[in-house]
Amino acid sequence: MRILILGGDGYLGWPTAMHLANKGHDVSVVDSFHRRLWDDEIGSQSLTPIKSLRERVRRWDEVGKKPIEMMVGDICDWDFLESVFKKTDPEAIVHYGEHRAAPFSMLSRRHAVVTQVNNVVGTLNVIYAMKEFAPESHLVKLGTMGEYGTPNIDIEEGYIEISHHGRKDIMQFPKKPGSFYHLSKVHDSHNIEFVCRIWGLRATDLNQGVVYGVHTEETELHPDLATRLDYDDVWGTVLNRYCVQAAIDHPLTVYGKGGQTRGFLDIRDTLACVELAILNPAATGEFRVFNQFTEQFTVLELAEMVADGARKMGWEPMIENVSNPRIELEEHYYNAKHTKLLDLGLQPHLLSETLIDGLLDTVRSHSDRVDTDLLYPSHSWSEGQLEKPRS
Amino acid sequence: MRILILGGDGYLGWPTAMHLANKGHDVSVVDSFHRRLWDDEIGSQSLTPIKSLRERVRRWDEVGKKPIEMMVGDICDWDFLESVFKKTDPEAIVHYGEHRAAPFSMLSRRHAVVTQVNNVVGTLNVIYAMKEFAPESHLVKLGTMGEYGTPNIDIEEGYIEISHHGRKDIMQFPKKPGSFYHLSKVHDSHNIEFVCRIWGLRATDLNQGVVYGVHTEETELHPDLATRLDYDDVWGTVLNRYCVQAAIDHPLTVYGKGGQTRGFLDIRDTLACVELAILNPAATGEFRVFNQFTEQFTVLELAEMVADGARKMGWEPMIENVSNPRIELEEHYYNAKHTKLLDLGLQPHLLSETLIDGLLDTVRSHSDRVDTDLLYPSHSWSEGQLEKPRS
Repeated sequence: MRILILGGDGYLGWPTAMHLANKGHDVSVVDSFHRRLWDDEIGSQSLTPIKSLRERVRRWDEVGKKPIEMMVGDICDWDFLESVFKKTDPEAIVHYGEHRAAPFSMLSRRHAVVTQVNNVVGTLNVIYAMKEFAPESHLVKLGTMGEYGTPNIDIEEGYIEISHHGRKDIMQFPKKPGSFYHLSKVHDSHNIEFVCRIWGLRATDLNQGVVYGVHTEETELHPDLATRLDYDDVWGTVLNRYCVQAAIDHPLTVYGKGGQTRGFLDIRDTLACVELAILNPAATGEFRVFNQFTEQFTVLELAEMVADGARKMGWEPMIENVSNPRIELEEHYYNAKHTKLLDLGLQPHLLSETLIDGLLDTVRSHSDRVDTDLLYPSHSWSEGQLEKPRS
Repeated sequence: MRILILGGDGYLGWPTAMHLANKGHDVSVVDSFHRRLWDDEIGSQSLTPIKSLRERVRRWDEVGKKPIEMMVGDICDWDFLESVFKKTDPEAIVHYGEHRAAPFSMLSRRHAVVTQVNNVVGTLNVIYAMKEFAPESHLVKLGTMGEYGTPNIDIEEGYIEISHHGRKDIMQFPKKPGSFYHLSKVHDSHNIEFVCRIWGLRATDLNQGVVYGVHTEETELHPDLATRLDYDDVWGTVLNRYCVQAAIDHPLTVYGKGGQTRGFLDIRDTLACVELAILNPAATGEFRVFNQFTEQFTVLELAEMVADGARKMGWEPMIENVSNPRIELEEHYYNAKHTKLLDLGLQPHLLSETLIDGLLDTVRSHSDRVDTDLLYPSHSWSEGQLEKPRS
């Protein structure tokens, strides 16, 4: 299948590209390199040394089953995106090409505006490009479980049947996101649902949980194929950050009480889920939503699991509760459904059974690259300052 | 009270400014004049001759109780908005300063992007300005009943209690809007709810129905104080357009079967609702939603009411069902609640009891200004073309 991956230089985009190329698909990747630029702004870098996209693609030519084509540009630039669609004629579009992340979007007014404009305009361009050049193609869009927030009822997969005053309707599940970044994904979901409804486009919105790990079948083929691992307060997701903290004998920083419950998944399951969505496309006019995670944990439970793993390595991990920079409930009900990808055949890699040893090993081998200044949150979300240059 | 009106040169912004100034408030208006610019792009013009904002404000100085201060600039320009907030120190902000309209946003990719970026960025700037310079102020934001779509259950005012698997939560009412413009208002609503929640701002989201009429107490004070009346296929709302069609003996163009039910209100009720919201502000941290309309009609019922009014004038109106350019249900359940503004004391001007004669009179007196080329829809929303210059 001809597959176009937007954001193909990113943490998940690059491993997805290799995975799909090795499954025999014709894969093209697009990236603007914004994420690499922001490493410079934030003063962060991937813990794992990563190669440029050009070097990655060249190395992949030697070890992969099928080559990966790369195109450099910004999907917010319509002329560029038009040329990409005309050149690649995609049957499936995997859209990772958005600005992360929640903490980045909360740094200042400028960051909030940049995040929302980039994500909304990029996605509007993609749906217009589909309508114009590839109306039969299938959009596989990366959303986030963070769109839902933490409601006091079970979280369904995108839709809920509501009975009210003796009448019923099946409606989009109400969203209550917790950052301007998460809000941008809610905006996208509404825009995409609309064009499926009025133009008959087909789309799958993958509301993904927090991904952990860096090892996939393909990243193991050569060190030049490694994907990034972020551990800092802006880009690092919680489990990856805990592992880095454990590896350098730094306390694992749990935000607040640590009762915040979220959905999590192994990076290999991300690749499997995206592949399953592509191979089982949404119908014409269908806006389909999958909740893409495999297990729920509180962030304190996760810290304890990482600490257990670290102790098995002979390390001496500590857990520290730090002041929560975010504004979120630290104790709440959370029960999110996630059966649709399992129904399509997903075989989860569960955290209890896999990984932590390997991830801890990888992390310790790069511990000389850790900047310990980046391990504590530097920005409180309640401040809402206009601009705060990072020093 | 110090009141800042964003979009104060518009159809509703200008009459609102005069109304509040005559109630003794200190009113400042901001406008970028985008709406006047687009008249040139679309080839449309207000049926009623309107003066420049500068002329309006000067005339108002002579006849109004308190002067209105004007500032020209774009709220998407942060430096400008910052200067406005510092200068006016508002206690209430009435936010009409967004791009209309549904048909405009559906003209092409460019129009969709311009509409969403303008509205989302302008509103993000406003909430950051409130947080920074006026954290106790109250945002009165103009949304639209079109955010809800036409669900098969009663439409509540912003929130709905959902019972699900034995648990309950009060959640934002799910939105299913019908154009990129309506979607932009949904995006705004989500962004504003978030900052009330995390920053403790106060906001009232007025989900307004379709407004009709041009006569208010203040517009009657002098012809130079008239507000605009749009009747064309892009800017004209349905009842205003029907009246213009009746006045020039053109068939009243009903889109499709005409069973589309919507909420409507008299322009005088808009002013009263905005004033009631200002005088009874949302609490700190509260995101409050009012459904702002007074009556529901199908668009066919409205055509028949206008035709009746026209016959009373001795005219000979005709009704024509034309192909619907929009993609919407033409027969559906519709029952939207609208009690909160009545509870605050709103005294509605109902369509059956008022107005049509006066509006028809006004319209006929300007019938030499009607461009009949603009009376039929020129753009099908199913097309989704990239760009289509208007000739």
